Amino acid sequence: MNIGVLGPKGSYSEKAAKQWLAGRNNENDHSLEYFDDIQDVFSSLSSDSVDIGVVPLENSIEGSVGVSLDMLLEKDVAVIGETVVTIEHCLLSRGKKEDIKIILSHPQGLAQCRQFLKEHFEGVELRTTGSTSHAAKLATEFPEMAAIASKEAARMYGLDILIPNVQDRRQNHTRFFVIVPSEKKEHIESIIHANSEEHEYKTSIIVYLDRDRPGALYEILAEFAQKSINLTRIESRPSKEALGDYVFYIDFEGYINDANIKGAIYNIESKVGMLKMLGSYPKFIPGPTSN
Amino acid sequence: MNIGVLGPKGSYSEKAAKQWLAGRNNENDHSLEYFDDIQDVFSSLSSDSVDIGVVPLENSIEGSVGVSLDMLLEKDVAVIGETVVTIEHCLLSRGKKEDIKIILSHPQGLAQCRQFLKEHFEGVELRTTGSTSHAAKLATEFPEMAAIASKEAARMYGLDILIPNVQDRRQNHTRFFVIVPSEKKEHIESIIHANSEEHEYKTSIIVYLDRDRPGALYEILAEFAQKSINLTRIESRPSKEALGDYVFYIDFEGYINDANIKGAIYNIESKVGMLKMLGSYPKFIPGPTSN
Repeated sequence: MNIGVLGPKGSYSEKAAKQWLAGRNNENDHSLEYFDDIQDVFSSLSSDSVDIGVVPLENSIEGSVGVSLDMLLEKDVAVIGETVVTIEHCLLSRGKKEDIKIILSHPQGLAQCRQFLKEHFEGVELRTTGSTSHAAKLATEFPEMAAIASKEAARMYGLDILIPNVQDRRQNHTRFFVIVPSEKKEHIESIIHANSEEHEYKTSIIVYLDRDRPGALYEILAEFAQKSINLTRIESRPSKEALGDYVFYIDFEGYINDANIKGAIYNIESKVGMLKMLGSYPKFIPGPTSN
Repeated sequence: MNIGVLGPKGSYSEKAAKQWLAGRNNENDHSLEYFDDIQDVFSSLSSDSVDIGVVPLENSIEGSVGVSLDMLLEKDVAVIGETVVTIEHCLLSRGKKEDIKIILSHPQGLAQCRQFLKEHFEGVELRTTGSTSHAAKLATEFPEMAAIASKEAARMYGLDILIPNVQDRRQNHTRFFVIVPSEKKEHIESIIHANSEEHEYKTSIIVYLDRDRPGALYEILAEFAQKSINLTRIESRPSKEALGDYVFYIDFEGYINDANIKGAIYNIESKVGMLKMLGSYPKFIPGPTSN
């Protein structure tokens, strides 16, 4: 299996993919393929060069990764897994702290360290890169450049850790989705199943609500409440048509074929403009490898 | 009155402030003060140098402006108004299209033009600035730099519009909040009231829900539904403590002293970990100046 992640080597997406693979069938038979941006990971799935993609979805400091949400709606993909990675951003450079003129990172990396950057590097130029590891790779070129990226990226590209733990909150986690082309879902799941049995599941859907029905969100939540389905996340995203039109990304506990879930989905479909089923997947359980 | 906005001159925040001021009492007696970033606009209110701030809240393509949401929760401010500005990003430079090596803009500007940048400028270096107008100002320095900013910024800084309308969707709007220090709210409102009577109001609140009560959001929405209060927006944002803990930003129609609103707020307060009342303000009505 080819697994597509945000590259180059040393990215948090790579860490997420390895963490998700750990303990799975033929864990070491799978190869990683690295892409320049999240959109390309999604596109690689449609072009058949990659079987599985691992993409960041939400971060505990900065919230949703907009491009991932947009692509989940746009592309014909299914979610077969999730994993949560501990993020520990460091300031990396081959130069000295006092010489830093340019700091590079993924927009999420910069945002997760906003306070730190404002306090310690006010006025320093900030450049965005496709990933934190790409920032580290670029920072090898000039001593006045620093990257916000992981310790692994420092090792990978031979940079010094000028300041560890530069994120605005000590606790920093990113949740990743494991995605596959919808039509290959069952085939891939059968190959790459976990060796241990996983019992708890989560399901993710996307619903479109138009402005003309302000009570629709309440009606949807009522369906879940009446059937005792636990929501674990609800996230709104503009529909891009007009201010006030939203798409909601909803995660809840349970498996798509459970009777209560089936009933809720059936009822919700009649209340919304559009419902996209992303799929059911084993719930992430924090283990010793995830910290 | 001093009104703080994201600067330098030519920013969409400036446009928003002027649009909101239009038709108000002593419309021309107020002066604008320009700040480097959104956080500084909020801080200027606590330091007494500025009376009113105008800050971007959400965009119809890219969604919420994270830093504004965070600051609304953190700082002791009240919302006294909203306005919606039509955004029309252009690619500006003093050089030629084929020579562009670096593109600068606010992270929201880059995100709103993601598709355009990928299609036409793949691999070109992207740099973030504190505002779109700051990007335009910087782009005057080198012909191989371009900024994503407004037509007004092109005029202001003498740049050419290389490509108009570069955002990924033709329709592009940003909603701004007009904020004041909480303790000065009534005083400022009495000075700067609108000349025409405004009848329709909206109210904004922030509530914190902890993970242990997955049904709490439903109970909140039930309060609104039972009292026939129309929600106009609901937005989740990580609480920054842990994945799965959210703060919800909720906007609805009505005035804080209306009996049904008072009742709903009273009931909701008993169901949530924290409720912050941001205030009631006249609903934005699109006029001839706002497109």
